[in-house]
Amino acid sequence: MAAGIRLYIEGDLTAGAPVAVSADQAHYLGRVMRLGVGDAVTLFNGRDGEWRAAVARIDKRAADLMPETQMRPQAEAPGPWLAFAPVKKTGTDFIVQKATELGVSRLIPVATANTQTGRTKTDRLAATAVEAAEQCERLSVPEVSDMQTLDALMGAWPDDRRLFILDETGGGVPLAQALAGGIAGATGFLTGPEGGFSARELDRFAKLSFVTRVTLGPRILRAETAALAALVVAQAVAGDWK
Amino acid sequence: MAAGIRLYIEGDLTAGAPVAVSADQAHYLGRVMRLGVGDAVTLFNGRDGEWRAAVARIDKRAADLMPETQMRPQAEAPGPWLAFAPVKKTGTDFIVQKATELGVSRLIPVATANTQTGRTKTDRLAATAVEAAEQCERLSVPEVSDMQTLDALMGAWPDDRRLFILDETGGGVPLAQALAGGIAGATGFLTGPEGGFSARELDRFAKLSFVTRVTLGPRILRAETAALAALVVAQAVAGDWK
Repeated sequence: MAAGIRLYIEGDLTAGAPVAVSADQAHYLGRVMRLGVGDAVTLFNGRDGEWRAAVARIDKRAADLMPETQMRPQAEAPGPWLAFAPVKKTGTDFIVQKATELGVSRLIPVATANTQTGRTKTDRLAATAVEAAEQCERLSVPEVSDMQTLDALMGAWPDDRRLFILDETGGGVPLAQALAGGIAGATGFLTGPEGGFSARELDRFAKLSFVTRVTLGPRILRAETAALAALVVAQAVAGDWK
Repeated sequence: MAAGIRLYIEGDLTAGAPVAVSADQAHYLGRVMRLGVGDAVTLFNGRDGEWRAAVARIDKRAADLMPETQMRPQAEAPGPWLAFAPVKKTGTDFIVQKATELGVSRLIPVATANTQTGRTKTDRLAATAVEAAEQCERLSVPEVSDMQTLDALMGAWPDDRRLFILDETGGGVPLAQALAGGIAGATGFLTGPEGGFSARELDRFAKLSFVTRVTLGPRILRAETAALAALVVAQAVAGDWK
């Protein structure tokens, strides 16, 4: 478990230069956690590593924190991308939380033919990602993209980033085999909705040079389990768990 | 997604020999799903493979199903065991559901020094496992053991089953490396509570010849994420996802 309080902030972290926190964070530090001047907090911003800081000033709506010592440098390998068809609300929160713990660098909600949910709230998903990053001792927070159509995602996908599509219709390559020798941070994954991809979508994938269809074994995984499992395999065989 | 209704039953499955279902299952088939005589159901019992059956008789409290054709033989490789310190209620349900999807053969709730929850209800966990097995197209249901102490678990652990302990204090072997060349079904995993294992527990593990301490990367995974991730790696590198 993380020792003490760990916060993600936007500002730069450098020794002796105080940083302001948001009003919500000030409330959390002062009212919920009852910190006062001089108390210790751990900070990260995704660029400058992890810092031990002290509360320099705090009132109801604002607080300044003074970075004192860098505890860890910003040395994280970038994680894979995860594009996913949102599932019912708790499923989407679950995907964002677990994917953050598993080191994903970008989260992209995608509307596919069989996607049952409406638009996702990017702000809400981003807040879930920040909270998970604070708790799991990551040094970064994944970028959360606005929900987009599958066509838009495929159209803008970088040719040099291999996209592994989790396909329950079978015939794909076992994921650990597909990833062997690769680098997790140079890959992306796409998981479908509860009803799977449509035949037209599967046809389209077959024509895209950057796509590899992969399989996750003989049982039918729920959509959120498949998303999580793909990231686990990526980190275990081609990422920072090695 | 599973097509149609898929039920786990206790009775033997053989062509032409009708099997009775439980009162709850009869209610589900007749009242919830509104099946009548002649309608099709898929059955499995963990021993005789998967069968297509037809409703032979149905009323409010009972139903007989007639197995007609075996669709799949009972050919599953046995899965690993998972011993886990229960986390708050939804976390435990989550572990049982996902572990079943991931092919675990035995689930063992364990009371450790830092375990915060009280006794688990074995019946409730077993029902969650049955439901997950029905949905994920498994041919078996994992055995759910009564909650036991860590001492009892260690005392009764078979010497020839390697136990991988997920240890967040660091220093363990990366899990994919520890599992390489192994057979998932001959292994077991133990995941700790939210507060981790105690120093005394870690000392004890070091003295046990069947234990290997393993690590799951640089981030701190929640207890339920660690349990799931261990099973994913096992199936991907040493199990039936290969």
